[in-house]
Amino acid sequence: MNLKELRQAVYAANMELPRRNLVTYTWGNVSGILREEGLVVIKPSGVEYEDLTPDLLAVVDLEGNTVEGTLNPSSDTRTHLELYRAFPALGGIVHTHSPYAVAWAQAGEDIPAYGTTHADYFYGPVPCARTLTPEEIDEDYERNTGRVIVETFQTRNIDPVHVPGVICFSHGPFTWGKDPAQAVYHAVVLEEVARMALLTRMVNPAAAPAPDHILNKHFMRKHGPNAYYGQKK
Amino acid sequence: MNLKELRQAVYAANMELPRRNLVTYTWGNVSGILREEGLVVIKPSGVEYEDLTPDLLAVVDLEGNTVEGTLNPSSDTRTHLELYRAFPALGGIVHTHSPYAVAWAQAGEDIPAYGTTHADYFYGPVPCARTLTPEEIDEDYERNTGRVIVETFQTRNIDPVHVPGVICFSHGPFTWGKDPAQAVYHAVVLEEVARMALLTRMVNPAAAPAPDHILNKHFMRKHGPNAYYGQKK
Amino acid sequence: MNLKELRQAVYAANMELPRRNLVTYTWGNVSGILREEGLVVIKPSGVEYEDLTPDLLAVVDLEGNTVEGTLNPSSDTRTHLELYRAFPALGGIVHTHSPYAVAWAQAGEDIPAYGTTHADYFYGPVPCARTLTPEEIDEDYERNTGRVIVETFQTRNIDPVHVPGVICFSHGPFTWGKDPAQAVYHAVVLEEVARMALLTRMVNPAAAPAPDHILNKHFMRKHGPNAYYGQKK
Amino acid sequence: MNLKELRQAVYAANMELPRRNLVTYTWGNVSGILREEGLVVIKPSGVEYEDLTPDLLAVVDLEGNTVEGTLNPSSDTRTHLELYRAFPALGGIVHTHSPYAVAWAQAGEDIPAYGTTHADYFYGPVPCARTLTPEEIDEDYERNTGRVIVETFQTRNIDPVHVPGVICFSHGPFTWGKDPAQAVYHAVVLEEVARMALLTRMVNPAAAPAPDHILNKHFMRKHGPNAYYGQKK
Repeated sequence: MNLKELRQAVYAANMELPRRNLVTYTWGNVSGILREEGLVVIKPSGVEYEDLTPDLLAVVDLEGNTVEGTLNPSSDTRTHLELYRAFPALGGIVHTHSPYAVAWAQAGEDIPAYGTTHADYFYGPVPCARTLTPEEIDEDYERNTGRVIVETFQTRNIDPVHVPGVICFSHGPFTWGKDPAQAVYHAVVLEEVARMALLTRMVNPAAAPAPDHILNKHFMRKHGPNAYYGQKK
Repeated sequence: MNLKELRQAVYAANMELPRRNLVTYTWGNVSGILREEGLVVIKPSGVEYEDLTPDLLAVVDLEGNTVEGTLNPSSDTRTHLELYRAFPALGGIVHTHSPYAVAWAQAGEDIPAYGTTHADYFYGPVPCARTLTPEEIDEDYERNTGRVIVETFQTRNIDPVHVPGVICFSHGPFTWGKDPAQAVYHAVVLEEVARMALLTRMVNPAAAPAPDHILNKHFMRKHGPNAYYGQKK
Repeated sequence: MNLKELRQAVYAANMELPRRNLVTYTWGNVSGILREEGLVVIKPSGVEYEDLTPDLLAVVDLEGNTVEGTLNPSSDTRTHLELYRAFPALGGIVHTHSPYAVAWAQAGEDIPAYGTTHADYFYGPVPCARTLTPEEIDEDYERNTGRVIVETFQTRNIDPVHVPGVICFSHGPFTWGKDPAQAVYHAVVLEEVARMALLTRMVNPAAAPAPDHILNKHFMRKHGPNAYYGQKK
Repeated sequence: MNLKELRQAVYAANMELPRRNLVTYTWGNVSGILREEGLVVIKPSGVEYEDLTPDLLAVVDLEGNTVEGTLNPSSDTRTHLELYRAFPALGGIVHTHSPYAVAWAQAGEDIPAYGTTHADYFYGPVPCARTLTPEEIDEDYERNTGRVIVETFQTRNIDPVHVPGVICFSHGPFTWGKDPAQAVYHAVVLEEVARMALLTRMVNPAAAPAPDHILNKHFMRKHGPNAYYGQKK
């Protein structure tokens, strides 16, 4: 994939956000990375989706320097860069304010793995990353948001490929994938799983996560070494 | 009905799932059966609905051997087959992850028969089948899912024609009917009934099921020997 | 208005139900009446909205005898007739299973007048009519459903013009108006008011109805002798 | 901007309300003001959005006298005028009965600032203005509604530019902005923030507002003297 192709992929992934009802106005952004070139393509800040074109996307290097384009990159760019640097498997990242994922983030709780829909994509609860300290905010809010996400995965020993998303306390979700399209796919799944989890809690506030052997089975039949979901590629 | 006609019916029923907002991505499948020939037509695994055509459907026999087609059948095929073998009245089966039915499944509770909307289609609560044991999962997860559904109906002495659906603990709903179209119809009704039941519980967590004489009246005026709903056929 | 015009009005009002997302499949019906001729036009039973035409509507007299048409009238026809007989001001009646109104009906509670949206149309809570006894069901379920609604309004001294709707315990809503279009308008308002009431209770389960002076003001500025909402007619 | 341009802007802003699913039937209105001329353009009372044209809008002066047009202005006009008189920064005002904002209004609670989505637009909780007394209603309901909103902001020392909206107890929301389009934008945001706040409370009824340093950071990066969200203008 070259830069032009990545521009097109990041553009298509961004446009998928309003189509899937994940964003209100400009509240979301998708990026993608060319690992060898060290280039990240990301939505420009505050641009309406209906006005977006592949040419308007911003291109930055991993330090955040603008390489191509005249518009400011998303204000969340440094969060994306921190995640790309820490998690080498990531090819695309999404941030939204999708309402059910935000609700769990604002309540400050992990999204429990209540069933197989969750386990088909997330191997364990979706973690809620802690609030930043006033010092972390003053120093570099967006970069430290990324660092706290990384800290969450390292401290809790979670593989970001097995749990392709996080919710940030008082804020909202980030998801990722092998490419921008898969990162958006995971954003859709996370929102749906967050909604199901809330509905489950409304049926019974004391509902418990599904047993481990159920969660393992569903994750492994899609993602394990002997996966048998879908078609041979 | 011949195999070509069943292919068309199963295709149309599958396409009804996204139209009725019952599925996200590929999270659902419909099958139909030719009882005399012992052939089951079912959605292939992991294929997007927008890419589906009647020719892409898988055809298997009741032991699960592929009879026609090159794509893998749905990973839930052995669950469907187990239900067809145990319940001779079934002509079509649907599995989805529709969110309100999933919420009750994840909470592990029967869906109570709170009113006439429910009683028009389900004669009693929609049962929640128990979780599989680790041994049942290891032996044959999908087939044993079907067996536990059958066990639920037999143990509780429920006629699957009178209660055309079930929710599986930690997982989600299966519904069925005399043909694939009716199975989808029941999937739509189950989701709507599950939603109304949750809203009812939100109005009053102590809400009680409707009295038996109300439930009987509504089921019988549509399905009893003297049914008078609809037009004479 | 003649019978042909009423057919057209009842047809248009029926078609408004799916357009306003008030019905799933065939779960609803609208009727209208010619008071001088004593003729009621109503949806035929179990006919899909997409198949409905003005010519397919059933015409019955106030005793329920078919006057025109070959299809069975709605199974709820005798409920409509009972309401037309008891409440002379009614020109149109609607029955649906709209989910938020059903939730309150299934919980068996009046819908509280929590605010001005409610008071703009319903002068006081929307009453929940009691469950029928087994004897009332056996004798004539649909007619006695109407009688229990009438009993509710008489016992509680409610003017059906001031409160143009009711919810029936374990069942769902009926609304009415001066003509079929206004009856549907009230069905839409009732569902929205039922939704707002449930959301209010979710914010605070102990939320109280609005003060009487607020409720009076809003009802009277639209419907009182000195109403000033809208345009002079 | 001249009167003709303001008519067009107010018309476009009104039509955005149904497009954004903020209104049922005629339950909403938008106005705009020409400060130098002292003229306010506002939706006429009770007119359906599909029938609205720029020419049908009412034009009144700040005392409420009709300057142009033959239709009655919105019954809420005197509320708008009171806000324009008290808050000189306002260029447009919106009133709706959007359901989640109404739910908080009917429960009589401020909408808590649970997270960054809220803080991006509202610097602190969205206040709930008190109920009017019977005397205030008798004297001039709509004008006193405006006065109680102003009292709320003055008593609590809130800058209406920093918190561009309010909910009125037992009633619903008003929002505003520098022009009619921004007032509608804030109406959309308020409804989404109200929904997220309710979902947050459903995850955890004891959820706490976000820490001040988070709320400050998000408001200031969009609206402070060193704002860096979006593009340089």
